[in-house]
Amino acid sequence: MKDSTLVRSNERVDDLERNGYQLIQNPEVFCFGIDAILLAHFAKVSSAKQKILDIGTGTGIIPIVMHAIYQKGNFTGIDIQEEMIEMASRSVLLNEIQENVTMKVMDVKAYKSYFNAGHFDIITCNPPYMKGHAGLKNEHPSKTIARHEVACTLEDIIEAAGYMLKYGGKLCMIHRPHRLVDIFTSMRQNKIEPKVMRMVYPKLGKAPTMVLVEGVKNGNPELRVQPPLFVYNEDGTYTEDILEIYGKKGRRENLSPTDTQE
Amino acid sequence: MKDSTLVRSNERVDDLERNGYQLIQNPEVFCFGIDAILLAHFAKVSSAKQKILDIGTGTGIIPIVMHAIYQKGNFTGIDIQEEMIEMASRSVLLNEIQENVTMKVMDVKAYKSYFNAGHFDIITCNPPYMKGHAGLKNEHPSKTIARHEVACTLEDIIEAAGYMLKYGGKLCMIHRPHRLVDIFTSMRQNKIEPKVMRMVYPKLGKAPTMVLVEGVKNGNPELRVQPPLFVYNEDGTYTEDILEIYGKKGRRENLSPTDTQE
Repeated sequence: MKDSTLVRSNERVDDLERNGYQLIQNPEVFCFGIDAILLAHFAKVSSAKQKILDIGTGTGIIPIVMHAIYQKGNFTGIDIQEEMIEMASRSVLLNEIQENVTMKVMDVKAYKSYFNAGHFDIITCNPPYMKGHAGLKNEHPSKTIARHEVACTLEDIIEAAGYMLKYGGKLCMIHRPHRLVDIFTSMRQNKIEPKVMRMVYPKLGKAPTMVLVEGVKNGNPELRVQPPLFVYNEDGTYTEDILEIYGKKGRRENLSPTDTQE
Repeated sequence: MKDSTLVRSNERVDDLERNGYQLIQNPEVFCFGIDAILLAHFAKVSSAKQKILDIGTGTGIIPIVMHAIYQKGNFTGIDIQEEMIEMASRSVLLNEIQENVTMKVMDVKAYKSYFNAGHFDIITCNPPYMKGHAGLKNEHPSKTIARHEVACTLEDIIEAAGYMLKYGGKLCMIHRPHRLVDIFTSMRQNKIEPKVMRMVYPKLGKAPTMVLVEGVKNGNPELRVQPPLFVYNEDGTYTEDILEIYGKKGRRENLSPTDTQE
């Protein structure tokens, strides 16, 4: 561990298995899952000048892992929850990446007050999966906001992205497959054309549990559907694809790739 | 063969491998592919009273195979091409199923002149895959109409289906995955909610080549994505799923499951 004074007593520090990067998490509130890692690998940074925004960043896992993977780009993570941004900012300091990664408290619905239209090249989002208050339980408020569409809806996020993305900019999301129609129709309404889709299946013969979607601002209609991504082999071991994404090819301990935000 | 006087000299008769059903086809014009068979299995008939419409029926393959599989329901196949309907009608006579299967010349764009709103329980369609005149070749006009959106567009078909389907009725389609966004947005615009989707992959590790979609008139938003359907095993043999669909489990000859309309 680097600067241990940055970590509170109820928190833990996880090794991200990429260039020594670490993340501060509070296990009582929320810990990242495979969905965040899959999205970080799906949303590729291609140039040092690119500005990347992560909406609902929580612990900051997505911008921090993306910086660890791509080692370029200028990242901003936003979240409506002050205490999450305070913790995510300490993870930025822990990794000494404050020149390239900034965490800000912001309500995405007020997007016009914060950024100019067309400011970002890439927007990532691992949004709450649960519609409205469906199946809402008595739990930590931060957990509720991360899992349920109480602070903002899928449509709020896509509308904000439509404003903040530059011409040709990309919105990269991961979500549950049952929301795919909502994602496609809302993207198109906001002039973000869905261009790439990848289904994530737990294993062969099972229905998919996650879907990755990339939309391009002002793109032409034509969706490219990628080969399916399987998490487990028939024998219960992780697939090569997953081991490669986790940066642990050959090592198979400490993986929990079916944990997601729910 | 049953009544050979029904078949012209430039035509051939194919055994559909279901209850002795046969189909007349003109190999110079168009022969059915795996897409038609997959759609016939995907669009399930649940009661004898159901009225089923197949839009752009061509040889009549879809209603004839569906009648062979389900042995119930009242089928109408429509096509803008007189000579296809004439041939499809002879296939109906050949199978002696004229009480339950009718073929009609009709332009789907004129849907209000032919059927009342809410007339059908199920509408099937294996539409032209190619947008507009893209990649149009100098070929038989019937082939062009079957492959290219020259006589009608995807949106025309979905609009007509929105009118002709009863409350809770189903539109079942097969198409190329790159048109998925168009299918979803057009269905929702016409109050047909996409409820079931299945991707068809040639084999493991490859991008999908076809997608099956079921939309329900006035349905609530929530898409169910089924497990992937693979055509070939790693060793090049057909998968159990495909053999089962072809009604040929255990026999592996005469299959051409990667041929589609294109």
